[in-house]
Amino acid sequence: MSRLTHDTISGVFPPMLTPFTESGEVDYDSFVTNLHFWNDAELSGYLVLGSNSETAYLTEEEKLQLTALTKEHAKKGRIILAGTGLESTRDTVRFTRLAAMKGADAALVLTPFYYSELMNDAVLINHFTRIADNSDIPILIYNVTKFTHVNISVNAVHILSQHPNIIGMKDSSGNVAQLEQFKSAAGNNYAVVNGTAAVWYPALTIGIRAGILALANCTPNECSLIQKYYCDGELEKSRALYEQLLPLNKAITFQFGVPGLKYAATLLGYKGGYPRSPLLPLGEADRKMINSIISSAGLR
Amino acid sequence: MSRLTHDTISGVFPPMLTPFTESGEVDYDSFVTNLHFWNDAELSGYLVLGSNSETAYLTEEEKLQLTALTKEHAKKGRIILAGTGLESTRDTVRFTRLAAMKGADAALVLTPFYYSELMNDAVLINHFTRIADNSDIPILIYNVTKFTHVNISVNAVHILSQHPNIIGMKDSSGNVAQLEQFKSAAGNNYAVVNGTAAVWYPALTIGIRAGILALANCTPNECSLIQKYYCDGELEKSRALYEQLLPLNKAITFQFGVPGLKYAATLLGYKGGYPRSPLLPLGEADRKMINSIISSAGLR
Amino acid sequence: MSRLTHDTISGVFPPMLTPFTESGEVDYDSFVTNLHFWNDAELSGYLVLGSNSETAYLTEEEKLQLTALTKEHAKKGRIILAGTGLESTRDTVRFTRLAAMKGADAALVLTPFYYSELMNDAVLINHFTRIADNSDIPILIYNVTKFTHVNISVNAVHILSQHPNIIGMKDSSGNVAQLEQFKSAAGNNYAVVNGTAAVWYPALTIGIRAGILALANCTPNECSLIQKYYCDGELEKSRALYEQLLPLNKAITFQFGVPGLKYAATLLGYKGGYPRSPLLPLGEADRKMINSIISSAGLR
Amino acid sequence: MSRLTHDTISGVFPPMLTPFTESGEVDYDSFVTNLHFWNDAELSGYLVLGSNSETAYLTEEEKLQLTALTKEHAKKGRIILAGTGLESTRDTVRFTRLAAMKGADAALVLTPFYYSELMNDAVLINHFTRIADNSDIPILIYNVTKFTHVNISVNAVHILSQHPNIIGMKDSSGNVAQLEQFKSAAGNNYAVVNGTAAVWYPALTIGIRAGILALANCTPNECSLIQKYYCDGELEKSRALYEQLLPLNKAITFQFGVPGLKYAATLLGYKGGYPRSPLLPLGEADRKMINSIISSAGLR
Repeated sequence: MSRLTHDTISGVFPPMLTPFTESGEVDYDSFVTNLHFWNDAELSGYLVLGSNSETAYLTEEEKLQLTALTKEHAKKGRIILAGTGLESTRDTVRFTRLAAMKGADAALVLTPFYYSELMNDAVLINHFTRIADNSDIPILIYNVTKFTHVNISVNAVHILSQHPNIIGMKDSSGNVAQLEQFKSAAGNNYAVVNGTAAVWYPALTIGIRAGILALANCTPNECSLIQKYYCDGELEKSRALYEQLLPLNKAITFQFGVPGLKYAATLLGYKGGYPRSPLLPLGEADRKMINSIISSAGLR
Repeated sequence: MSRLTHDTISGVFPPMLTPFTESGEVDYDSFVTNLHFWNDAELSGYLVLGSNSETAYLTEEEKLQLTALTKEHAKKGRIILAGTGLESTRDTVRFTRLAAMKGADAALVLTPFYYSELMNDAVLINHFTRIADNSDIPILIYNVTKFTHVNISVNAVHILSQHPNIIGMKDSSGNVAQLEQFKSAAGNNYAVVNGTAAVWYPALTIGIRAGILALANCTPNECSLIQKYYCDGELEKSRALYEQLLPLNKAITFQFGVPGLKYAATLLGYKGGYPRSPLLPLGEADRKMINSIISSAGLR
Repeated sequence: MSRLTHDTISGVFPPMLTPFTESGEVDYDSFVTNLHFWNDAELSGYLVLGSNSETAYLTEEEKLQLTALTKEHAKKGRIILAGTGLESTRDTVRFTRLAAMKGADAALVLTPFYYSELMNDAVLINHFTRIADNSDIPILIYNVTKFTHVNISVNAVHILSQHPNIIGMKDSSGNVAQLEQFKSAAGNNYAVVNGTAAVWYPALTIGIRAGILALANCTPNECSLIQKYYCDGELEKSRALYEQLLPLNKAITFQFGVPGLKYAATLLGYKGGYPRSPLLPLGEADRKMINSIISSAGLR
Repeated sequence: MSRLTHDTISGVFPPMLTPFTESGEVDYDSFVTNLHFWNDAELSGYLVLGSNSETAYLTEEEKLQLTALTKEHAKKGRIILAGTGLESTRDTVRFTRLAAMKGADAALVLTPFYYSELMNDAVLINHFTRIADNSDIPILIYNVTKFTHVNISVNAVHILSQHPNIIGMKDSSGNVAQLEQFKSAAGNNYAVVNGTAAVWYPALTIGIRAGILALANCTPNECSLIQKYYCDGELEKSRALYEQLLPLNKAITFQFGVPGLKYAATLLGYKGGYPRSPLLPLGEADRKMINSIISSAGLR
């Protein structure tokens, strides 16, 4: 694939879940199986090593292996994004290079967050600039306040968007007004990607053109169809489908998190696998609830 | 006006600011002057005694006088909503009756919030049910987490929406996914009103039909035009106008609050007046910033 | 009583609960009965109209009647503090005067909080200065972030402590380092009163000399004995008693709030009465838990 | 050293800062120099790889090298604690073993936190139990909500304290009531260590016997003297010294964080070095403020 640009980032990407065995090993076979399922679905590409991939629990070797497998098995022409953010600037530079060598088309770089209150504009601008300066592949900023307790400012996005090697961002806030502000501040050479199905339809209506959606692990075609309907001017069908998916999305993001996502994916035919400890598999009552949500939504 | 129903609540309503003199008296003349200006604008009605009215700083006598003046001077056919929520259930029942006698068509009732952590579903359901049972005019729930630190649950809204005298709610969260959930949970006989211009266009796209918007104090016609364009299918024009207004909206809500709203209203030809103490008027630097935002947005 | 000064504010004060009848009327007789019980206990004075008094749910007439009854029935020589804070500066000035006329020795003035994000140093300094300038009785600042979501700054306390009519503050944060900072910043002519039994012993160890403690409604003598032991140099006995009371304190403040406080007070021989709506009485399971906590702590 | 037990954990430990060169390399020489300075001070031991060590920015190789150097250079008889917590259970088990091999006497294990809302009692109990089961050296739980946004419950501490290989915890909340609850819940075979100088004196008064204090990097003898005075019954001297140190502690923890700590350490004769990117060194104005705080406190 030639160098990725902001305008080629459109459509739906699953932040791919990582199946583990019961004893906690990465189940690479199941990962590849899922990838082939997703290859058959309407998707624009893949995010490997996202928040829903339990990346925080993966070793570097595992991360690189998953990236290489994604490159090997992804349908030709699909975009491969890799989550490469680490806490230190130098380590992120180093790992971004490794991910690029394994085939990532662009790196999605998490805001550092351990000292969340110190992550002001100067710190974040310096961090992302140094990473972008030292990366062969383009960079997207990853803003996910729910996990990091850091929320990058509109002003920092404005400044960083002018860097030729920073081509966009993923914002998972679900705050549509903020998505709009990022988009306005960044200008035209920058892709603002919506990071949650909770606002997928509203995000489309304000001109967002891509979504990295946990829900796309489970219902990729439906996520893409919302966008297709929207682009075809069938607004009511788009919105109706979006509304139909909301209860499941709420369950796998807000209520139950990754263990919920994995169980829902399993119910819908994917290889969800076990979460890695400290995460625990869902209990019986929670599994019943997800079962019931999927049935009520007519997704099975 | 005949009894207000959920389906007649559509369009834009300003939560009317209350002008004060420099010494802190309510400036009723200026209030009436504004009302006449707004009568000439494209609006569906008025909210008297909202958060932007500095209601927390008004005496009961002042509140009733403002309600009566609204009834007297509002253009015929326009809906008059009055904010009647107080901390105790019994006091809210009593004051809602008084507001109805002064001409309010419906009461917007704030969630009680002093003991915010105790405001669970049982408490809120009991509170709003008792108020609705005892009110001659219909009730709308007012959910404004920014000020109350209470966020009514989707479940409580679901239950309360079945009360024949609770015809809707105003949600000022700016959380479009939550607006959608309230709408889905409440069913068809219930109006979910968007409470912030920050998501006015996205709210329209998910089927919201009314907005009580602080910004409508300053730019009522523009706020209404966003909705008109949307309903006429001119989506791009609707969205463009929405985006044009965002910076001013951010300034008068998030950044500067009511003193910012009042200064912006003054710049745009209304009688903003002074805020009441403890609020202080904007300083010179902040005034300049609002001036500049209004100029940049081409609103003058 | 001669004019209250900072150094006379020492010892334990209950923020007196307000008993209501099942139908929601203030039960003045029970209030007076409690007052006589407390007169027989080791206490320095009383706070009428505090957070635990459900003041947010009282009418002005009820508030003044409770203040007058406190003056009439309080044991001679005990200090009467009245919570007089309202949202607007002018209304607080007016009501503070009324409370003084009914017999309050000093006014405890809540930080205004509806527009919590606007309550910066300039706003709070102006507010409290105007109130202190216009009050015949001395003023104490009341900082209770849990309910107000406002936390007055050390700097604002430093400046306000220099006003001759501001003689101290109540801080209910339970943050001992902050209590220490307020004390250091304010200097010697200012009483920093601890507002929660959660840190009563640690507060004594840093030199705090007074506590307005919800728990003192239920166990006034024990609360005072902690201080007596401490002042007599019997540190281990002081700390042991403090630790013995912590589980009950946690239940009546964090877990169950005012309805829990009222039920515990009833169990311990006081007239707890009903809470006023929207607050609901405790359910069966919660009552059992409080019963069990009181038994385990050996308080009965 | 023979196996560490809960009762041997007493006194003051600096969470040792990690000096970096301007280009961002670990400056091991300066680290060793500091260690020798601290060997000459009144300290009970050292924490290597704490929050103030910028551990989040260190590679595994650097972490092990720092642990080995601590073992090599620490004065005989002093306790060596190493921060070994990582996000996944298995990785924490693995790294704890490596740290033990390099000489750590006990491991301080951070609560995992990326999916902070999923870190409930069951998850944390399972995580720490598995780590303690698989570690040759004893484990202390590390609770630091400011950075992790996770706050372990009193109940989880109660259960985990019964594990024979979990000998205590560090709580950095500065919440004295919570320290007291952890202590009461855990019983006698468990050391609750205070993690912030903000409440060092109050913590001593409730029976806490150890402190891992950022401030002990800069003023180790003073931190220890507070405890010595306290244990000698010289309470007023203890408290006065505690109060004297508070402004500097506030600056290096709340206001300026690690870059502030490093600058203060430099001013006081230690090798503070540079922070590692993304952290930035303090600007001129902030340096002046710290200079002034140190002078005002009479620490130079």
